[in-house]
Amino acid sequence: MNKRVGQKTVVFQNPPEIVGGYNVVGPKEGQGPLNAHFDYVLPDTYNGEKTWEKTESSMIETAMNEAIKKHNIAVGDIDYVLAGDLLNQITTSSYAVRQIGRPFIGMFGACSTMALATAVGAMLIDGGFAGKVLCATSSHHDTAERQFRMPTEHGNQRPLTAQWTVTGAGCLILSAGQSAQPDQAVPTGQPAKICVTAATLGGILDYGQKDANQMGAAMAPAVADTLLTHFYDLGTSPEAYDLIVSGDLGTQGLQLLKELLGKSGFHTLDNLQDCGCMIYHANQDTHAGGSGCGCSAVVLSGYLLDHLRKRDLRKILFIGSGSLHSKESLLQGESIPGIGHAVVIEALDK
Amino acid sequence: MNKRVGQKTVVFQNPPEIVGGYNVVGPKEGQGPLNAHFDYVLPDTYNGEKTWEKTESSMIETAMNEAIKKHNIAVGDIDYVLAGDLLNQITTSSYAVRQIGRPFIGMFGACSTMALATAVGAMLIDGGFAGKVLCATSSHHDTAERQFRMPTEHGNQRPLTAQWTVTGAGCLILSAGQSAQPDQAVPTGQPAKICVTAATLGGILDYGQKDANQMGAAMAPAVADTLLTHFYDLGTSPEAYDLIVSGDLGTQGLQLLKELLGKSGFHTLDNLQDCGCMIYHANQDTHAGGSGCGCSAVVLSGYLLDHLRKRDLRKILFIGSGSLHSKESLLQGESIPGIGHAVVIEALDK
Repeated sequence: MNKRVGQKTVVFQNPPEIVGGYNVVGPKEGQGPLNAHFDYVLPDTYNGEKTWEKTESSMIETAMNEAIKKHNIAVGDIDYVLAGDLLNQITTSSYAVRQIGRPFIGMFGACSTMALATAVGAMLIDGGFAGKVLCATSSHHDTAERQFRMPTEHGNQRPLTAQWTVTGAGCLILSAGQSAQPDQAVPTGQPAKICVTAATLGGILDYGQKDANQMGAAMAPAVADTLLTHFYDLGTSPEAYDLIVSGDLGTQGLQLLKELLGKSGFHTLDNLQDCGCMIYHANQDTHAGGSGCGCSAVVLSGYLLDHLRKRDLRKILFIGSGSLHSKESLLQGESIPGIGHAVVIEALDK
Repeated sequence: MNKRVGQKTVVFQNPPEIVGGYNVVGPKEGQGPLNAHFDYVLPDTYNGEKTWEKTESSMIETAMNEAIKKHNIAVGDIDYVLAGDLLNQITTSSYAVRQIGRPFIGMFGACSTMALATAVGAMLIDGGFAGKVLCATSSHHDTAERQFRMPTEHGNQRPLTAQWTVTGAGCLILSAGQSAQPDQAVPTGQPAKICVTAATLGGILDYGQKDANQMGAAMAPAVADTLLTHFYDLGTSPEAYDLIVSGDLGTQGLQLLKELLGKSGFHTLDNLQDCGCMIYHANQDTHAGGSGCGCSAVVLSGYLLDHLRKRDLRKILFIGSGSLHSKESLLQGESIPGIGHAVVIEALDK
């Protein structure tokens, strides 16, 4: 059965359910406005490990293990782990997945990885290839800073357009819908079933932006393109969503996205937000807001899931945005390719 | 419909067809025993580019473009590009995919990437999410050498257990089966339809090996595990395949794999080979043979597809093997996690 709609969108026949998740954040994120939605806040950026890289790997390992434990899932029932991160050769994820022993699909979408993993994981479930999957990703401010920019100890001054890499790891458990099972008596007030109902994966757009301290500008065109494609493919419009939330364009990128969407006739979108703009207080000195795979992962697995569960939000369009460069590619004069991957997440009746 | 069999295997309901492919290799590979199966051999390792990284990216771009052209596919009909490579943040693939404009699923499985992309691509097609996908990957000796080991100009002496990263890029086009279309008169002697019929994705195994010059030892246990799981899941045995071909364990790793399989009762496997052992002549001074994402990609898209088309081979088990470390993780004292992803490829009647 063909589940494609239009140029780049798929609609799930039996929408996979997000049965739950778990997230871990650093101390700075724990002091931010979304504090109440985080499962575990590290006491410091090392958390007892010898290197920040080991800390980051332990964070994603904790997120996966605790998600499994919290939702009472047998590890053997997880058919695939879809994970990736910002570090070279996605070692954060690989080292963390070692102890799980389940089939591992390594992914790379930079900061769009959570959306990408959720979309592909949902396809594997709806396609009949998996009953349950884990989707996980992470970032750590200090590992990213020294890998992509300057030695962390250098304390380099950052321009106001720069985003602050979030220290955070998030994991979602996706599961095949229960529709085939016999009806069960559902208690009144039963919380919603949160499902992935559609996805629009994006192509790469690159308008020649070369400044890794302005990643919002590199990603905004790709995000706009994926959003417009999504609306066109489904014959829908931004008003169909309680929230359209990008992750992570930051303040500069979000402004550019609004301008780009405005040029296509979508003005004054009150329901458009960005995970990078949501995760820190204005006085936390992050300049243009948060970034990193972990940013949208912890906002989705925390704040967004919580509000979907309470049905304050009933239908959201979560669009991950990625800057697909490396330190070496920029040193060789290359520009920053941007990408945007979108998934529709809905709170449905059980 | 559940397409899972056993612990880690999926069997495709409408096996996606490998309609064709294209590969590009470096001069050293062009002088090897598989020369007749390569589409394009570079005159030198730069091929007119300023850096080896740009060369590698142009190779995978050429492989994708020429595969599309050779098989007369409209770019807009490609629903997903699944690609990845060894370079930090898989920039080789991202920069190459820019010009295609189709949805990009970035993957990382180190040298197992071609098998991983083929397996996931086949799932997206059989699941109803795609009509056609491109699966592509690459490696370049000189980009890998300086990223993972020593500055290339250093001319570092290599131990005899070290593998030589292949300069090569390969692309496959997978397409939904034509079974739903009305029967057509098929000319006598019609070549076979080459299909992906099953896949077994592996988990990570790590026995503590820390030497990046002995990657075969790091990967062999994971490959053995995936093979044994595959046989167990499907109730089959090595004799069911004309060829079981790993990519890329090299001579040392292949020997270890044979020992590990022997311990499980599978002795004297005459049909077991390794892409890394096939791609160079013994006198080409590569020590333990070839490695790198490009190795198994060019052997599959060249030699193996050619023999499947001629039906010299009718059913193969292609198992990609990956070492999931980074230079930084080894410098921090970590070991090398290994992984093995297997796909069954068969020549079927059209």
